[in-house]
Amino acid sequence: MTRRQRLREAGYEIEQISGTGPEIDPELLKGSIEGFLGFAKVPLGVAGPVRIRGTAAQGDFFVPFATSEGTLVASFQHAFNAMNRSGGAAAICGNEQVSRAPCFEFASLAQAHAFACWLPSRLTLLQEITARASRHCRLLALQASVIANTVYVVFEYSTADAAGQNMVTLATQEICERLLLDMPQTPLSWVTESMVSGDKRATPMAFRATRGRNVSAELVLRAKQLSRYWKTDAETMERTWRQGVNGAAQTGTVGLQGNVANALAAIFIACGQDAACVAEATTALTRVERTRTAELYASVTLPNLIVGTVGGGTYLPTARECLALLGCAGAGMARKFAEICAVVALAGELALVGAMASGQFAHAHAAGGRKERGSTSEGGGA
Amino acid sequence: MTRRQRLREAGYEIEQISGTGPEIDPELLKGSIEGFLGFAKVPLGVAGPVRIRGTAAQGDFFVPFATSEGTLVASFQHAFNAMNRSGGAAAICGNEQVSRAPCFEFASLAQAHAFACWLPSRLTLLQEITARASRHCRLLALQASVIANTVYVVFEYSTADAAGQNMVTLATQEICERLLLDMPQTPLSWVTESMVSGDKRATPMAFRATRGRNVSAELVLRAKQLSRYWKTDAETMERTWRQGVNGAAQTGTVGLQGNVANALAAIFIACGQDAACVAEATTALTRVERTRTAELYASVTLPNLIVGTVGGGTYLPTARECLALLGCAGAGMARKFAEICAVVALAGELALVGAMASGQFAHAHAAGGRKERGSTSEGGGA
Amino acid sequence: MTRRQRLREAGYEIEQISGTGPEIDPELLKGSIEGFLGFAKVPLGVAGPVRIRGTAAQGDFFVPFATSEGTLVASFQHAFNAMNRSGGAAAICGNEQVSRAPCFEFASLAQAHAFACWLPSRLTLLQEITARASRHCRLLALQASVIANTVYVVFEYSTADAAGQNMVTLATQEICERLLLDMPQTPLSWVTESMVSGDKRATPMAFRATRGRNVSAELVLRAKQLSRYWKTDAETMERTWRQGVNGAAQTGTVGLQGNVANALAAIFIACGQDAACVAEATTALTRVERTRTAELYASVTLPNLIVGTVGGGTYLPTARECLALLGCAGAGMARKFAEICAVVALAGELALVGAMASGQFAHAHAAGGRKERGSTSEGGGA
Amino acid sequence: MTRRQRLREAGYEIEQISGTGPEIDPELLKGSIEGFLGFAKVPLGVAGPVRIRGTAAQGDFFVPFATSEGTLVASFQHAFNAMNRSGGAAAICGNEQVSRAPCFEFASLAQAHAFACWLPSRLTLLQEITARASRHCRLLALQASVIANTVYVVFEYSTADAAGQNMVTLATQEICERLLLDMPQTPLSWVTESMVSGDKRATPMAFRATRGRNVSAELVLRAKQLSRYWKTDAETMERTWRQGVNGAAQTGTVGLQGNVANALAAIFIACGQDAACVAEATTALTRVERTRTAELYASVTLPNLIVGTVGGGTYLPTARECLALLGCAGAGMARKFAEICAVVALAGELALVGAMASGQFAHAHAAGGRKERGSTSEGGGA
Repeated sequence: MTRRQRLREAGYEIEQISGTGPEIDPELLKGSIEGFLGFAKVPLGVAGPVRIRGTAAQGDFFVPFATSEGTLVASFQHAFNAMNRSGGAAAICGNEQVSRAPCFEFASLAQAHAFACWLPSRLTLLQEITARASRHCRLLALQASVIANTVYVVFEYSTADAAGQNMVTLATQEICERLLLDMPQTPLSWVTESMVSGDKRATPMAFRATRGRNVSAELVLRAKQLSRYWKTDAETMERTWRQGVNGAAQTGTVGLQGNVANALAAIFIACGQDAACVAEATTALTRVERTRTAELYASVTLPNLIVGTVGGGTYLPTARECLALLGCAGAGMARKFAEICAVVALAGELALVGAMASGQFAHAHAAGGRKERGSTSEGGGA
Repeated sequence: MTRRQRLREAGYEIEQISGTGPEIDPELLKGSIEGFLGFAKVPLGVAGPVRIRGTAAQGDFFVPFATSEGTLVASFQHAFNAMNRSGGAAAICGNEQVSRAPCFEFASLAQAHAFACWLPSRLTLLQEITARASRHCRLLALQASVIANTVYVVFEYSTADAAGQNMVTLATQEICERLLLDMPQTPLSWVTESMVSGDKRATPMAFRATRGRNVSAELVLRAKQLSRYWKTDAETMERTWRQGVNGAAQTGTVGLQGNVANALAAIFIACGQDAACVAEATTALTRVERTRTAELYASVTLPNLIVGTVGGGTYLPTARECLALLGCAGAGMARKFAEICAVVALAGELALVGAMASGQFAHAHAAGGRKERGSTSEGGGA
Repeated sequence: MTRRQRLREAGYEIEQISGTGPEIDPELLKGSIEGFLGFAKVPLGVAGPVRIRGTAAQGDFFVPFATSEGTLVASFQHAFNAMNRSGGAAAICGNEQVSRAPCFEFASLAQAHAFACWLPSRLTLLQEITARASRHCRLLALQASVIANTVYVVFEYSTADAAGQNMVTLATQEICERLLLDMPQTPLSWVTESMVSGDKRATPMAFRATRGRNVSAELVLRAKQLSRYWKTDAETMERTWRQGVNGAAQTGTVGLQGNVANALAAIFIACGQDAACVAEATTALTRVERTRTAELYASVTLPNLIVGTVGGGTYLPTARECLALLGCAGAGMARKFAEICAVVALAGELALVGAMASGQFAHAHAAGGRKERGSTSEGGGA
Repeated sequence: MTRRQRLREAGYEIEQISGTGPEIDPELLKGSIEGFLGFAKVPLGVAGPVRIRGTAAQGDFFVPFATSEGTLVASFQHAFNAMNRSGGAAAICGNEQVSRAPCFEFASLAQAHAFACWLPSRLTLLQEITARASRHCRLLALQASVIANTVYVVFEYSTADAAGQNMVTLATQEICERLLLDMPQTPLSWVTESMVSGDKRATPMAFRATRGRNVSAELVLRAKQLSRYWKTDAETMERTWRQGVNGAAQTGTVGLQGNVANALAAIFIACGQDAACVAEATTALTRVERTRTAELYASVTLPNLIVGTVGGGTYLPTARECLALLGCAGAGMARKFAEICAVVALAGELALVGAMASGQFAHAHAAGGRKERGSTSEGGGA
């Protein structure tokens, strides 16, 4: 029985993915695309199940990856198998907020300082305005920084289960216009977004103030599985990672991670997320550490995960099927989806470090990206 | 006549994109995907033409974007129109190289230092080895850094028209194994990639040593077009950008750019590129400057553009059609494709800054992402 | 009349600086130095007066610089003269706080998450503990970040007029020990400072949450003075700075500034501050912008200025005299001192950009660092 | 016998430091200071000896620290003692070079590209010009980056035993003026330093291309000494450092180090170095790792150490005595001095991590900075 058949028997709809469903009505796409010509078709593979012991995500999950990078799905399957044999991964999605950061330029530092001192007194008013204007968007906090005659303000919002970038843009526009009515001094100029929010670029700021969802995943890999799956041990994994950490520290990169971009790009494209946000989601922190009992502690923290289960491209037919495959379609599912993303990113980090530790980094690429491979001995059983 | 019809009349094949072509033979995907289930279908819109006066890319181009972010394609169309009326954009792709960065850990600093001193003497030998092992991969240079008992080596390669990440991984594996045969001292451990290369993450290193293709695009926008398309002037655009620059400087981000991730993610997905590389391509530098004659000089430099026109996902049916739409399918086209990418990124930056300068940042998002829009008054004419 | 005589006539004590005072009693140094051998004597020059229109610093100030970099004091004198002729500089010291950032590692992500959720409930208790333990140290806020099984906590304190690093270390030690008594779970390990505070290293974090004193200085330089002092104009100054900004953006540096380290190192050594904190004070943002009337707006923002007017080395004889020269000796003077520091840093930035704009960057170094110079035509009049 | 007496008996001159020498002739200071008023007197303590097994620095060294931070010298003494009992530290100074980075702005990208392609052909000519103009300065290499219409050039020089910043400024000025005579196109503007060199600010660039001296120090600390000196073990030290690494990674700092600024600021002030260069010297990489035999491997790499033993403030009386104390006064001593700096920085890192690992971080500060202390049980014996 093929994987498709098994997933169908398990009740999953994959008609659009497998190309057997009805043609997509272009009317559906209004608001998502202009100059519409058709669809880019990105190969979609499934790995899994992976066992997740999260707060919102609990159970065994088949994960869809949209990619054309050979061996990528296989290496996730490999890591999932190793993880499952160690009991799966834990995950918790903590804070959730998205920011917009307008700036206001005044005639002088004195005026700027006065505005920055006055602004916090308006928080309640601005919260009411935001709540009136949107069903889902809530203003949580604001923070002002004086850069000589200019004040940069970070407004932090919650956006329910949407990724929320448009929502917070609209809210901030409204807030700014309201502020202009009674600020102590009129600014010479202002813009809605001053590149402080971190939108579409990696910055370390998310480590201090979550951007999107803040989620961690962790697990302890048993020595036996390290040996079985990567012919290595915890000490070698730890050393390999530390060599990478010291390498990364020479480059001025943001955060500390291996290739979470691989995992997230593939899931984002599959699940109708904004793939440009992969840039900022690389603000991540991976840990790979030997425990006292010679097992391997590994974790990934993603403090800047811009994802949603409503809005954006989530309603598109194949994205909808992918989200449904994860049990994440629709409202109330963003935390769950974030936890799954973190676990998958963790699997990717383990696959990377495991391959390097076992000296198979190049061999894996050589074997996979070029020619036919035999079937994996286990997993991928759907 | 619809856009599809016009493109077909102009001789472009868009059967796979528009869903009227034959079903894709799964055999074709061997080596690109595992756990194959079908395809993620990402809406594909076209904007253009945009006039490019590049070294490799010359003429008027229709650009495919795979995205579900509403208004994205429309805002590029808007910018293309403004750019065309100012004569189009210039572009030059300069350096081309991709790196791998293994590290070797020794018993002592003295041994590491000795290895670093010895290594350059092997360059010619390693170049021969690389050339023998691959038709396309050439070792250009190597550079060693001593971090106490560990030497981090950056090998720079040319990879012809392929993105080349796998190619350089294989070459580096071979080089490392050859080095192990006669290095002065045997390392205690070594890995093929030590996170110094910048693979899948933004680092400023590409500004000093190109990663992928290094390409710049520029144009001078006439005051009349600024007024016409964004109801603004060069002074306001310059100030808006400078406010953003000072904003970005507060965040610890890499490079200096607005949202090149938007442009590149959409083109990468359309054209079969590795979308995870959007993370590193945000290592970019945008400039928006008033000229003495009150026109606007704008440029984008992408020193870290990992793209190819052969290999990877470029052979996939819809990717192939998109590359062909740009006249970039196959060997000999990587520079041309890189120049187009830079011009499109530049358009995106102008669209962003223009919208902010005209105070329409939120309005554009509000209008576009939510409801039907009337057709754009010009452009999009295909 | 020599400068020394003038300063003495003006009532300033400079006996220790000029070497005519009594020998320093080694007993005085207890607590400041071990293995005491004597004193490093760093040449001390004075530039000024510089006119400051600050909130705390108001008037004309002679500024002491301890340095052996030839031309440094002269270039500040030159900039002070130009600034005075444009009315002097404004300055405002806003926020004041210093952080310590312990971390707590738990057995699991779940325990870490629980601790992070519980911790804010203890804020009032911890504030009381801090207030009881110290006359000057007050706990303002705390913020916890979950990195898998480890919680990093930033405690923000006010430290009155002391720089405060030791004060916050002691307070945090006490807080941690108190927390250990009743936290929900006992951590596996913890440390008082986890390198998140930014102590002794540049990080962009201070832009979001002040570290030390947060102070801005600004002025508008008249076209006439630009021409007179640097043979340049506002447009050239702006362009020169922008070229530097685009240069800095290629390097992965923190903040955006020219050489504030020069100004701050020289003042810090003179005034008994911790010179190692120059490293973090380079987290700064300089602006150099042409106004619509072709004058030059220039500003410096220092969000990470670790300075004090009590404690540390401020009581040392020559430091005391230097602080007194600025009217900043003792309690209640830290804001004033911070504002002066910002204005001096601004002067240094103007001197740098002015020299580059006028093409005299090398010439200035050549003339000054090598041979005798004639006296400056104005200023330095003390 | 006091420390002073012992050092004198050992043949070291410390008359200026101890205040018993002749008054300094102000004539001596010409070229080093303007607006001369006298001297800032910074308390100078000595720790040592520390055993160094370097390439240039070999033997036991007494190290001078100019600081008013209580406990600083004592904590170095403590670390020196621990290091000596493990055989001392190894050190190697590798590359030595200093850069200047002018930029040239042209009318177009095409012109800029042409200049960048042409420039390398002039290398030999420029090397000859540099060699003719200076006895000590040699042009080693150049590297050009095209940022649209502007070319940023990094010129790398050797500067013998001088720190060399002024030397390379003059050389670059001369080079630029020579280039202007026959470059293919005349630039619209140019500046001698475009903030790419990393002068006075931390950037990761030095990890790829040494700035100043590139030096590493390392040692293996025996378990017995860890227990004796810090009541800890290698596993705890490693974990403590790793917690710090993961902390630093959240902040966007450059490099990976604890507090090398403390060590370097104190030595720089003592030895007549440019204290403002502490800012860039924090571009460092520290490692603290458990070995397989449960000992502790520790190292510091400083790729950006701007130091000299001739020129600058090195000739000043107390600086001269301090350099002589290290056997580093005058020509031919820069590598030796760099190796000593690295070992001292390493001692500082060990002291920091040791204090944290033993839970004494705050206690050390509390005891030292406030009140009298008994004499240390060993070391400090001079």
